[in-house]
Amino acid sequence: MAGNTFGQVFRITTFGESHGEAIGVIIDGCPAQLPIDLEFIQTELDRRKPGQSKITTQRKESDTVKILSGIFEGKTTGTPIAMLIPNEDQRSKDYSHNQDVFRPSHADYTYQTKYGIRDHRGGGRSSARETAARVAAGAVAKLLLKTQGIDVLAHVSSVGKIDAPNINITTADEFIAQRENNIVRCADPATAEEMIACIDSIRKQGDTIGGKVNCTILNCPVGLGEPVFDKLHADLGKAMLSINAVHGFEYGSGFTGSEMLGSEHNDVFVHGNAGQVKTLTNFSGGVQGGISNGMSIEFKVAFKPVATIMHSQNTVDAEGNAAQIQGKGRHDPCVVPRAVPIVEAMAALVLADHLLRNRTSVL
Amino acid sequence: MAGNTFGQVFRITTFGESHGEAIGVIIDGCPAQLPIDLEFIQTELDRRKPGQSKITTQRKESDTVKILSGIFEGKTTGTPIAMLIPNEDQRSKDYSHNQDVFRPSHADYTYQTKYGIRDHRGGGRSSARETAARVAAGAVAKLLLKTQGIDVLAHVSSVGKIDAPNINITTADEFIAQRENNIVRCADPATAEEMIACIDSIRKQGDTIGGKVNCTILNCPVGLGEPVFDKLHADLGKAMLSINAVHGFEYGSGFTGSEMLGSEHNDVFVHGNAGQVKTLTNFSGGVQGGISNGMSIEFKVAFKPVATIMHSQNTVDAEGNAAQIQGKGRHDPCVVPRAVPIVEAMAALVLADHLLRNRTSVL
Amino acid sequence: MAGNTFGQVFRITTFGESHGEAIGVIIDGCPAQLPIDLEFIQTELDRRKPGQSKITTQRKESDTVKILSGIFEGKTTGTPIAMLIPNEDQRSKDYSHNQDVFRPSHADYTYQTKYGIRDHRGGGRSSARETAARVAAGAVAKLLLKTQGIDVLAHVSSVGKIDAPNINITTADEFIAQRENNIVRCADPATAEEMIACIDSIRKQGDTIGGKVNCTILNCPVGLGEPVFDKLHADLGKAMLSINAVHGFEYGSGFTGSEMLGSEHNDVFVHGNAGQVKTLTNFSGGVQGGISNGMSIEFKVAFKPVATIMHSQNTVDAEGNAAQIQGKGRHDPCVVPRAVPIVEAMAALVLADHLLRNRTSVL
Amino acid sequence: MAGNTFGQVFRITTFGESHGEAIGVIIDGCPAQLPIDLEFIQTELDRRKPGQSKITTQRKESDTVKILSGIFEGKTTGTPIAMLIPNEDQRSKDYSHNQDVFRPSHADYTYQTKYGIRDHRGGGRSSARETAARVAAGAVAKLLLKTQGIDVLAHVSSVGKIDAPNINITTADEFIAQRENNIVRCADPATAEEMIACIDSIRKQGDTIGGKVNCTILNCPVGLGEPVFDKLHADLGKAMLSINAVHGFEYGSGFTGSEMLGSEHNDVFVHGNAGQVKTLTNFSGGVQGGISNGMSIEFKVAFKPVATIMHSQNTVDAEGNAAQIQGKGRHDPCVVPRAVPIVEAMAALVLADHLLRNRTSVL
Repeated sequence: MAGNTFGQVFRITTFGESHGEAIGVIIDGCPAQLPIDLEFIQTELDRRKPGQSKITTQRKESDTVKILSGIFEGKTTGTPIAMLIPNEDQRSKDYSHNQDVFRPSHADYTYQTKYGIRDHRGGGRSSARETAARVAAGAVAKLLLKTQGIDVLAHVSSVGKIDAPNINITTADEFIAQRENNIVRCADPATAEEMIACIDSIRKQGDTIGGKVNCTILNCPVGLGEPVFDKLHADLGKAMLSINAVHGFEYGSGFTGSEMLGSEHNDVFVHGNAGQVKTLTNFSGGVQGGISNGMSIEFKVAFKPVATIMHSQNTVDAEGNAAQIQGKGRHDPCVVPRAVPIVEAMAALVLADHLLRNRTSVL
Repeated sequence: MAGNTFGQVFRITTFGESHGEAIGVIIDGCPAQLPIDLEFIQTELDRRKPGQSKITTQRKESDTVKILSGIFEGKTTGTPIAMLIPNEDQRSKDYSHNQDVFRPSHADYTYQTKYGIRDHRGGGRSSARETAARVAAGAVAKLLLKTQGIDVLAHVSSVGKIDAPNINITTADEFIAQRENNIVRCADPATAEEMIACIDSIRKQGDTIGGKVNCTILNCPVGLGEPVFDKLHADLGKAMLSINAVHGFEYGSGFTGSEMLGSEHNDVFVHGNAGQVKTLTNFSGGVQGGISNGMSIEFKVAFKPVATIMHSQNTVDAEGNAAQIQGKGRHDPCVVPRAVPIVEAMAALVLADHLLRNRTSVL
Repeated sequence: MAGNTFGQVFRITTFGESHGEAIGVIIDGCPAQLPIDLEFIQTELDRRKPGQSKITTQRKESDTVKILSGIFEGKTTGTPIAMLIPNEDQRSKDYSHNQDVFRPSHADYTYQTKYGIRDHRGGGRSSARETAARVAAGAVAKLLLKTQGIDVLAHVSSVGKIDAPNINITTADEFIAQRENNIVRCADPATAEEMIACIDSIRKQGDTIGGKVNCTILNCPVGLGEPVFDKLHADLGKAMLSINAVHGFEYGSGFTGSEMLGSEHNDVFVHGNAGQVKTLTNFSGGVQGGISNGMSIEFKVAFKPVATIMHSQNTVDAEGNAAQIQGKGRHDPCVVPRAVPIVEAMAALVLADHLLRNRTSVL
Repeated sequence: MAGNTFGQVFRITTFGESHGEAIGVIIDGCPAQLPIDLEFIQTELDRRKPGQSKITTQRKESDTVKILSGIFEGKTTGTPIAMLIPNEDQRSKDYSHNQDVFRPSHADYTYQTKYGIRDHRGGGRSSARETAARVAAGAVAKLLLKTQGIDVLAHVSSVGKIDAPNINITTADEFIAQRENNIVRCADPATAEEMIACIDSIRKQGDTIGGKVNCTILNCPVGLGEPVFDKLHADLGKAMLSINAVHGFEYGSGFTGSEMLGSEHNDVFVHGNAGQVKTLTNFSGGVQGGISNGMSIEFKVAFKPVATIMHSQNTVDAEGNAAQIQGKGRHDPCVVPRAVPIVEAMAALVLADHLLRNRTSVL
């Protein structure tokens, strides 16, 4: 049973290989009458597309999205929304050397063994190109969330061992402006400089480096999340872990929380100004018992370094002989700058899905 | 749309509140003709049950499981397997003080707000007692995995800031023997001593502490995991994050991997003795492109400290007045010793599900 | 991938064999705060239970239901509702003759071949006893529908070639009173007499006979049903066809409609008294384009004759030898009198599910 | 929760409106390494396309299918297969008169009420044009079934009150040749003549007429179907009822079976020539207990007359005023000739899905 569908009520199915005709996505379950701003969707895709800056891959893809169905006179109709992104800059011959050898820490070996066949051009289905379809769908989810005042805000919090300080978000607009003001998408300008220099230097060495993305969701209503398995943070965790290169997820206090005492970690309830219940601290990361509690949702995602490096590496070929491989083509030295919109898209998809799943009173 | 079902092909649905009649689980999709060792299932439950030692809650529950269906003459028949665990030691009055106040960092507030009603006795559905049903189902999954030689092996790797060294597993039996030889379930005897002393001391202070559980899956075949959303590690992550008190998940290199260079992190392929493909290192944690690669699967789970402490804490009540609450009843000072079988159960459920989902050739 | 779950949002999973410990059902997704009338659930079960009258099987089962979870102080809590019905009158030895031979038109041969093992006692999982669990769950669905004023009303419309005239339902209560006034559950008293005599005579011959059940759903709101696959009538059809012995389903004009002209068949729209849109005729059976249109939903279900007859029949055994078999035990000469509550239960489950699935505007 | 996905393991999601950019389908879960004959897919679509003959709509659409993903060097790769069919002959202005009035027995009223918005051009999503996507996906399912020797064979068995005699299928090829030899797709040549004359005469009157399609599945292995809800015939029934204009489904003895005695209806088991178990009669329609028994699967589908007629009809408009409407555009006088490939496609999708779901032994 294949796994190309995500979500229960707001549900997406993606398709496409990096060097095929096109990639795309169908959204089923988007409510009717939602105004669709096609320009916004394209802007989200532009934040993910290759060739943005000196610290991303130099591949050129316009990633122009086309909507095939589900929209009538600028609004959703409640029917499936199909979105198509044609593949343009497919230098498939760059990948012919991959046909018979397995690139280290890529999915060549596992796809070949699982399916007995693989589209070896540029990683085929295992390519991170697939995430463009997620970003397009996530943009629609964001438009839905905006009608409820919910903002999903991520930025690069670490590159290698360079960590940004905690950002105190005042307004969503200000945060976004600050983040988009630099090519690494870190909301702290000083750290951003450092990160860019680091990535640029690693790129010149033909190497790559990992990093982390922090995400905050503002104005999430109380009540999202479905115990006991589809806890809000569990679905966020799965969503993040399904993104290429992600190796870790934590929310609220995360791994550090496992070193704390209960008396330090408990979030004391108080009444907020507007009469609502709040907590003094937020080690719970906005989720208690798997259900959002009205505080900011806070989580962090760890990305491993990109596997394609420009060094020569030992490996094996399909026949079992020792072989050598060297990265060719145009690759990212660090994924996190382009991963920010992907993290936001997947978070928006989880939130939209849970918003629509949350129907607990008798009609 | 509620969330009490887990898995696609090997699929479980759990039910029950901590202070109701019973808790239980239905397994649908277990293959036919699997011999069921009821004693093994009970042993797994015994490892999770309360009252095991001085460092667990002193509540007494035998957690005796009864199978109602799906087994005929000692074997599965391919029909749903229903298992029931009656609730015994329900001192509901211990919880009457919870009716109107929200315990900090518990699910009282979120359940009450989401559903407009809650069974306040002992946490009701949000109680970790629900995980007993998972352990029962996980035991059946383990029996299925054992027919394929797959072992799921977890142990306590940290309590607070006390970390166990990496364990080099020689055989599953030896690892289990060493782990079960101490009440904290750490496979390193010296660290176990330290952890026990730490928990005992914290218990005496009326406080609690977090910890971590490491899990290794041996002999997983190549090919499990369904791109692009149901990657093996994404489903393991969701499974772990759905366990009460879990705040973080990482696999392979995890968060540390995000600080590494690609040239350090890449796992070089070589041919193993038996002709199979292996990797020299295992930063991939046994999963590449979301699909198992035949190496050991390695992941780590972070648990926050238990929220119920014996100190007086500030909070609010349902009417919005400031209130005070103090833990009563019998609670765990640290969950990780009892969490080991839960982590194993959830991992076994994910593996069994993906084993049955993995059908990729033309029949 | 097994098939013991029905519904998407109001979702049930049944378990249990006819001669095991118990049968039962878990409902997941029932909204919170729904008052549960246990007596009503039991009454529904009593209408299905064996031993009701001279024209049903003489087996005795009280079919007493017990709720294990999901209800607190008389109301649903939004957590899974588990219901258990212990098996009582299991004369398993009545079935030992079935162990090695395949009863004609039963599921013995197909279960044995599919699973390689079967609980041969009384049909095991393939027994219509499983439908008791559906009736219990359907009773909860009915309670939900009642809060919206929706009534699900079935009765026996045919036994063999004896057809009841069309019933003009004035009120639900009156219809129910008339139907429950006779043991065959036909709302037309004169036809009921005839049917009872027919079944009684066939019973005395050791034979069985088929029949039909008509169902009308009153006060269904406009808008239920999810194009293009989960059309309301398609889900009703699947629900009915999943009931033991059902061989046909039609709604509205049904098979007769296929012989009509468009100019005869079209339902002309008019404005009703209360300002709503109605149709002059109802060949559409209350569903257009897969979505309820506010008219009565009308469908018909065909049941084949019970396969167990008291005659000697030729068959084969598991080793492939010719064999003879003769019905023993206590069986129904005609299923439709006991099928009425099952049809209603399944229809109620479909309606409840679609009521909760129908969320099409932006929140 | 929307309903545009069908199947569990071999799973399709369709999208598109009749007058939008394109319609299409994604297949997820098709096994890898299946050779794909694009010409065969196109041939299946050609059997469904409009403008084939004097007894179908005169609309012209080439219905040319394009595969966007999932195929590499002529074979499936196990990744999603996306297929696109652009819309060509969209005379949207033919439908401007539909914008404000509800066409009788169409889905205009229910879509408008459910979603609060609708693409009124040509029925939008409710148009039977959507079934082209099903036929494309069904063609892939047929290719899968052919590797197992399974044939899905439908033909027109009735038009209005003209019934074809039972066809004794000798070989699939011969049956297909006979059926495709006439424009009404009835495998009995004499009846075909009669049907064609009938439809032609009704067309000239500006009216429409219903009909029936019979379907036989040859060489289905024993064991397909998942009790208790996903019985093979229940899923076939739902599949058929989800096709536009279908009002009834029966399998095996069907509605007639409800008039029979058990002693007439039971299918006696015997041993066949090749040592396999067979039944002397096939009132079970090839399915017992919801599981295929190795006999031919036999079912019948009833289609209502097309709702668009060239007569003037009374109706209401969106504001609640009485209105008149008269069919314009180019419509089918009878759907069954073009419905044959749709019935086959949906049946093939159900069979492919259950073939892949049927995994009951321990690996």
